[in-house]
Amino acid sequence: VETNVTFELSQSYLEQFREAVEQRDVAFIRTSLDGVKSEDISALLEEFDAEDSRYVLELLDHQIGADIISMLDEDHRLKFLAHFTPEELAAYLDLIETDDAADILQQLEVKTREEIIANLQNEEKARYIVELLRYEEDVAGGLMAKELIRANVNWNVVQCVEEIRRQAENVEKFYSVYVVDDGDRLLGIVPLKDIILSNARTRIADIFDPDIVSVYTYQSEGEVAELMRKYDLEAIPVINVQGRLVGRITVDDILDVITESAEEERQIMAGLAGDVEEADNVLVLTRARLPWLIVGLAGGIVGAHFIGIFEEDLAKVSALAFFIPLIIATGGNVGIQSAALVVQSLAGSTAFETSAWTKFFKTLLVSILNGIVLALLVYTAVYLFQGNRLAFVVSIALFCVVIFASLLGTAVPLLLDKLGINPAVASGPFITTACDILGIAVYFTVAHFLYHL
Amino acid sequence: VETNVTFELSQSYLEQFREAVEQRDVAFIRTSLDGVKSEDISALLEEFDAEDSRYVLELLDHQIGADIISMLDEDHRLKFLAHFTPEELAAYLDLIETDDAADILQQLEVKTREEIIANLQNEEKARYIVELLRYEEDVAGGLMAKELIRANVNWNVVQCVEEIRRQAENVEKFYSVYVVDDGDRLLGIVPLKDIILSNARTRIADIFDPDIVSVYTYQSEGEVAELMRKYDLEAIPVINVQGRLVGRITVDDILDVITESAEEERQIMAGLAGDVEEADNVLVLTRARLPWLIVGLAGGIVGAHFIGIFEEDLAKVSALAFFIPLIIATGGNVGIQSAALVVQSLAGSTAFETSAWTKFFKTLLVSILNGIVLALLVYTAVYLFQGNRLAFVVSIALFCVVIFASLLGTAVPLLLDKLGINPAVASGPFITTACDILGIAVYFTVAHFLYHL
Repeated sequence: VETNVTFELSQSYLEQFREAVEQRDVAFIRTSLDGVKSEDISALLEEFDAEDSRYVLELLDHQIGADIISMLDEDHRLKFLAHFTPEELAAYLDLIETDDAADILQQLEVKTREEIIANLQNEEKARYIVELLRYEEDVAGGLMAKELIRANVNWNVVQCVEEIRRQAENVEKFYSVYVVDDGDRLLGIVPLKDIILSNARTRIADIFDPDIVSVYTYQSEGEVAELMRKYDLEAIPVINVQGRLVGRITVDDILDVITESAEEERQIMAGLAGDVEEADNVLVLTRARLPWLIVGLAGGIVGAHFIGIFEEDLAKVSALAFFIPLIIATGGNVGIQSAALVVQSLAGSTAFETSAWTKFFKTLLVSILNGIVLALLVYTAVYLFQGNRLAFVVSIALFCVVIFASLLGTAVPLLLDKLGINPAVASGPFITTACDILGIAVYFTVAHFLYHL
Repeated sequence: VETNVTFELSQSYLEQFREAVEQRDVAFIRTSLDGVKSEDISALLEEFDAEDSRYVLELLDHQIGADIISMLDEDHRLKFLAHFTPEELAAYLDLIETDDAADILQQLEVKTREEIIANLQNEEKARYIVELLRYEEDVAGGLMAKELIRANVNWNVVQCVEEIRRQAENVEKFYSVYVVDDGDRLLGIVPLKDIILSNARTRIADIFDPDIVSVYTYQSEGEVAELMRKYDLEAIPVINVQGRLVGRITVDDILDVITESAEEERQIMAGLAGDVEEADNVLVLTRARLPWLIVGLAGGIVGAHFIGIFEEDLAKVSALAFFIPLIIATGGNVGIQSAALVVQSLAGSTAFETSAWTKFFKTLLVSILNGIVLALLVYTAVYLFQGNRLAFVVSIALFCVVIFASLLGTAVPLLLDKLGINPAVASGPFITTACDILGIAVYFTVAHFLYHL
């Protein structure tokens, strides 16, 4: 018996499969995909164009086809769905859970969307999907599914099991039964375990756990993720402002939220605009890279003007130019380090906030320590090659740059956060550019005055 | 009825609580913590020293105390546990699930560890913990818990429910029953839902699902996380090389793994060495920042020597110095962008790998496009202020820097990956420093030759 059924999507299998698709080899396609998980088939189909994908999909069971559609990545899905009529899509959507169905519809044009909804066989599902489409994608309401098991607090265990039986086909994963009052307000949960271990006549009112964590429809996906992580939840019920149970978010969706937001932050830090990956085409990649490169360029032009102001100093002591890279590299590094620490503490949800002043004071202390060490190192290095005077100027300037860059790196994310902008923007090329300009200004100003002493 | 029981850890409550602790106000402490989740109490206690924490803990129910201990952050826990005898700790560990218990013991010295294990009341748990301590922390074996529900394939549903009843107290969360043969080899699972909906006499053999995903004890935590994310699993069974079921990993642990590794990568990118946060003390923060600052400094010194080689050119055309910041900023940005894309694609688990040559070729195309746009922009900007000659030199040099930096940014992470080093190291100050030096060398070389044409 095979226990580890993860499917190896090898290059050689891909080629075999490609040939089978070209030759319309139904037997090979069906046999080789038998027992393969929908997630893997969907990854496989992403290697084919919409027409071939459609051909393969139609050879499979309708439910598996629906699963595959819900798992395709968004770009592929959009191209793929264009090859289906609204009636065909509705037949698939009838088999997809409401949260995924709403996500799929959200991608489509309003007209197509309406046509599909009108063609759904399951009227309750159609109503649910319309409700879900009302929510923004990044709040609890936009993440939740309508599928869940709901039990009235006045029921007993047998009635509850009956409800589970009725819903078993619609609700793919369930861990608990949500207990509501006659007004549909959420009162608590009963874990499935307790349903199994309770006597059939036991009243739900006697076994439910009222100490539960729930979220409102309007709470952000970040808040939901943080709650589920903190309290180790596999699902969280969603309530509306009246306290009525309106849906449920499962941890697999939150795992995706966390992975995507980490990805997004990494891209911001790397100075990539928009969600790109190496596999994207050359134009997409170029467009993603250019914006921040141009910002850096503009910073460089401003820097050039700054240095221009001190042209006379440079002409007298041309060795001053040697240390421009050192100064701005250190300034940039210090700025990014400071910004990253602030961004991290803003993202964390420690309840006890330290004030901005405490942050600044601490940053100042840390940067004084760093600055002293770096200044001493640089003094030694420069002294050996350029003598005392230049070593003195460069190390004092470096010290000042470290202080200023760390204050700037601390201030910018705090400011962005106050303005409602994602402070992570400050951990990328933006802060580097700002620190570059700052570094040059500080370096030449300090040098100018020290040389005229 | 309160449905949203998340606890507000306000500054004012903290002060009230602090006063109550000082005055040993048992009534206030007990009342105000009644019904509060262990996660929140543990966050609260992290604000107190070990002695006060111990005082509070001992006022609470022993099981809640055990939960709190397992949730404390590692630094706090280590200080805190030092105030207990091995006997006292063993009494708490008897109430903690095996995976968390093993993590706690892993932190302690071998002698203390052995004493605690010898004092455990639950002998099965002691044996389990000793087994778990054998595994590295970052593989499936080190993440798994021994608590799970195991059913023999020859049982029927009633026998299975009996086993659930027997284990109900030990296993905190369960979603499925794992089905094994007489040799304890994993055959499949039965979701709890199916247990509820099946007839008591139904044989497990007739209802279990054999198409499941499992992991071996030696698989890395990254692989486990990727499988659980991809297949939307709330728990994954762990087997040994003989295929025997030895444990289970739940999604809450994976959520922590993903969050921590995203955090770690962010720190690497920001040039922070070691796991720090803003709240750490000044010395810790300084130590975390210095290493990469010193690398940057060394790069700056090398850069200074490079520029020194071209001192004559600089003396003739001092305006060359103006564009040093522009050149190295662009070089650094391009390098980081390229490295980030490679690191991302190395981390992703697309089954179809593109070859290194394809990557290079594509990078080259993208950077030629970027380079042309940037060169044109810079030509215009410099032409307006410094005339044609310098504009020509700077823009050609910039173009070359873009090409070289993107090739370097692509090569370094690939190389690190080949050497078995985390390629993410290449997305931080390391690549910036390398690109700085490269940029200077390319800029002055190009300028030197173009001015002598």
